[in-house]
Amino acid sequence: MSKDKKLVEAITSMEDDFTQWYTDVVKKAELMDYSSVKGCMIFKPNGYAIWENIQRELDARFKETGVENVYMPMFIPESLLQKEKDHVEGFAPEVAWVTQGGLETLPERLCVRPTSETLFCDLYKNIVQSYRDLPKVYNQWCSVVRWEKTTRPFLRSSEFLWQEGHTAHATAEEAEERTIQMLNVYADFCEQVLAIPMMKGRKTDKEKFAGAEATYTIEALMHDGKALQSGTSHNFGDGFARAFGIQYTDKENKLQYVHQTSWGMSTRMIGALIMVHGDDSGLVLPPKIAPVQVMVIPIQQQKEGVLDAADELKGRLAERFRVKLDDTEKSPGWKFAEQEMRGIPLRVELGPKDIENGQCVIVRRDTREKTVVSLDEAVNKVAELLEQEQADMLARAKEFQQTHISDALDYESFKDAVVNKPGFIRAMWCGELECELKIKEDTTATSRCMPFEQEMIAETCVCCGRPAKKLVYWGKAY
Amino acid sequence: MSKDKKLVEAITSMEDDFTQWYTDVVKKAELMDYSSVKGCMIFKPNGYAIWENIQRELDARFKETGVENVYMPMFIPESLLQKEKDHVEGFAPEVAWVTQGGLETLPERLCVRPTSETLFCDLYKNIVQSYRDLPKVYNQWCSVVRWEKTTRPFLRSSEFLWQEGHTAHATAEEAEERTIQMLNVYADFCEQVLAIPMMKGRKTDKEKFAGAEATYTIEALMHDGKALQSGTSHNFGDGFARAFGIQYTDKENKLQYVHQTSWGMSTRMIGALIMVHGDDSGLVLPPKIAPVQVMVIPIQQQKEGVLDAADELKGRLAERFRVKLDDTEKSPGWKFAEQEMRGIPLRVELGPKDIENGQCVIVRRDTREKTVVSLDEAVNKVAELLEQEQADMLARAKEFQQTHISDALDYESFKDAVVNKPGFIRAMWCGELECELKIKEDTTATSRCMPFEQEMIAETCVCCGRPAKKLVYWGKAY
Repeated sequence: MSKDKKLVEAITSMEDDFTQWYTDVVKKAELMDYSSVKGCMIFKPNGYAIWENIQRELDARFKETGVENVYMPMFIPESLLQKEKDHVEGFAPEVAWVTQGGLETLPERLCVRPTSETLFCDLYKNIVQSYRDLPKVYNQWCSVVRWEKTTRPFLRSSEFLWQEGHTAHATAEEAEERTIQMLNVYADFCEQVLAIPMMKGRKTDKEKFAGAEATYTIEALMHDGKALQSGTSHNFGDGFARAFGIQYTDKENKLQYVHQTSWGMSTRMIGALIMVHGDDSGLVLPPKIAPVQVMVIPIQQQKEGVLDAADELKGRLAERFRVKLDDTEKSPGWKFAEQEMRGIPLRVELGPKDIENGQCVIVRRDTREKTVVSLDEAVNKVAELLEQEQADMLARAKEFQQTHISDALDYESFKDAVVNKPGFIRAMWCGELECELKIKEDTTATSRCMPFEQEMIAETCVCCGRPAKKLVYWGKAY
Repeated sequence: MSKDKKLVEAITSMEDDFTQWYTDVVKKAELMDYSSVKGCMIFKPNGYAIWENIQRELDARFKETGVENVYMPMFIPESLLQKEKDHVEGFAPEVAWVTQGGLETLPERLCVRPTSETLFCDLYKNIVQSYRDLPKVYNQWCSVVRWEKTTRPFLRSSEFLWQEGHTAHATAEEAEERTIQMLNVYADFCEQVLAIPMMKGRKTDKEKFAGAEATYTIEALMHDGKALQSGTSHNFGDGFARAFGIQYTDKENKLQYVHQTSWGMSTRMIGALIMVHGDDSGLVLPPKIAPVQVMVIPIQQQKEGVLDAADELKGRLAERFRVKLDDTEKSPGWKFAEQEMRGIPLRVELGPKDIENGQCVIVRRDTREKTVVSLDEAVNKVAELLEQEQADMLARAKEFQQTHISDALDYESFKDAVVNKPGFIRAMWCGELECELKIKEDTTATSRCMPFEQEMIAETCVCCGRPAKKLVYWGKAY
């Protein structure tokens, strides 16, 4: 009983304190819990089930493009991590080191993988000899560790779950093509399944991955107007190949370096789902990713025939949807609040009067719209409503994104926008690191991406006034 | 070309050198590779795909019994590991220790999980208050680390993949029921999907899990007559609950300790598949677990119409089975050898003459039996042959198991059996550790399990001659 009570107590309102609202939802929807290990989280069943669905959907899309899954060791010897200069500089300060194995001190420290470029390079060096061995398009699902000082559930933690794809190609063109292909796989997945529209573009040199020639990114806009980097795809050129000596003989029997890519998406997408779709009653999950799509809730379930009818309806729904029946002894009100907190897209209410009338009531989670429908038509109506809810959620998120982009043509309006117009700010940039650093220092906004569709909205850099080179999307970010 | 050649070169024969044969199959079927990290392996696509199928099948069976998946941190603080005395004694000597995070030395060492009882206990302590919170039936899929001195692909490595289920119950009866239920889930899965029959029973105190009240095991017999412990299920009673203080208030509002279980199955089952079903041409996979069930191999594929017909047939088969078409430029002979090495259950050969006659040739991997069938009937015939192959593989494995069990009524015949009768040895035991240790020292055989169906095949212990208490299955083991 105490648990129910907690659930129905109002959570902090998003308008009052977005950060606290987020923490409340994570906790009360029972997605995640803190552990005794500093900076590490526990994925509880409701949270992990979302990740399982993300994995299933994304993995199927990967495999359609020829990706093969593998599993590499979780440890990287220090000497291997050090082979690529930029890479080790980027990651060494934030890795966890294993120094003892069993009762012995190890001759060489091993880091717990923060990412696995170095291990894949070591493998490709051994298994790629001829052009016939290419391309290699491998991926792994695993956890990685980055020793973070400040952590937030799903968004930043010392250990997190992700997938990391690592490919090797014969030519630079093919590597670039794969880099963009996977960025598009991510963006399509987010739009079609998570109902989150993405801004696509290239990272500036300052923001790119340690060791990459080019990093591409998809950036989502949260309800508070902050951006969330949601997936990245890197083209390494032949930089890692030269550092690790990954060469193949081409058709003319000449030795060539391979060209490589890597790309990753993580459990932070669960954070994105919360912050894009959630409301003051809790989580709102798009039907395609929801672990439970429909919750059947009987009304006056102690009355004869109610539970039987609810169970019969659940059975019919279960043939097409992920459905549960809440036949616990809680009151319908508690059950509604729980279903809403967990973000279950539809609930179906069924009481003695409904049964008498041969009908049930379907309530959408996102709009709370009620539909009374005959029991015969219930399955088809649920299908229709789930589809509509998925489409409407994407449309609303798109509308939000589009109405939270502002243009800044000079530095004063840029600074004003950072404070008063939450969202992306479009502004021109001269291309110099100096201006990027100054903007960040002055405003806390960072360059999110240089969009693929470039246009010149002004002729001078928004910061220094020198000739502009690139249109950049700026924003505060998680 | 060089790769093909290697594949078709004969591998070591199993009769000549079983250990080398095993290593050859692992390597040439491209299941696994060694990494630069001592004791850690790389799961290559062919090997990992088998694990993905094991996960999918087993996970579905878990969920049918109410299991919910979670993910816990990979690190365990030293103080947490030490809370249960037997447990820490069992595992501390073989764990890897993280002592540095980022640039700092950690205030407390963290071990990389060798198993996660302690973390689950820590969680249950926080989330279990009332009888209404029980049972908790959680599972996680993850990798664990045990610092092994000698390693063998899939069978023993410093890091391996597994699932670990951890449950908490209100009563001792319910915990015991869950322990046995999961053992049966494992045994059924192995028999029905992996086509490997299991010997079920209880471990002796010497062989039980560190911290358990009772450990139950399923034991398989490999082709060389050695046993492989394939899955274990532990009943902890309230031992961990007392050590961690996991208490709930029952219906009478009294404080009670929970009763717990844990159970696990790992990637070593891939080793079992190799050693139970493999032959001198390589791997032989049961159809239900094979990542590719049918390989279509065109003959004289350069001739007009052959590739089109093969592709059309592949398309029809793909609606019901996991099927691939090998249209590479290798000769049919190479392709057959590769398909056999990888253990693909059926190959379908299709050449110009077959097309003329409206037929194709289907060849079983296990028996090499050929069936000529009309193209119209091909899909149904493939279904029938896959089903038959699955059933026959199980029948042969059962026959092998049954014919490799011998009874030893005195110590001389026991010692003779260990040398001359590979397989399980049934013999009576007095129940004393002393005899178990002596048998191991004298013969290298260990107690595998005390079978659920007990009978008295002699009145005295096979080792010491004192009155016998238990019938035990003994054997050399991996």
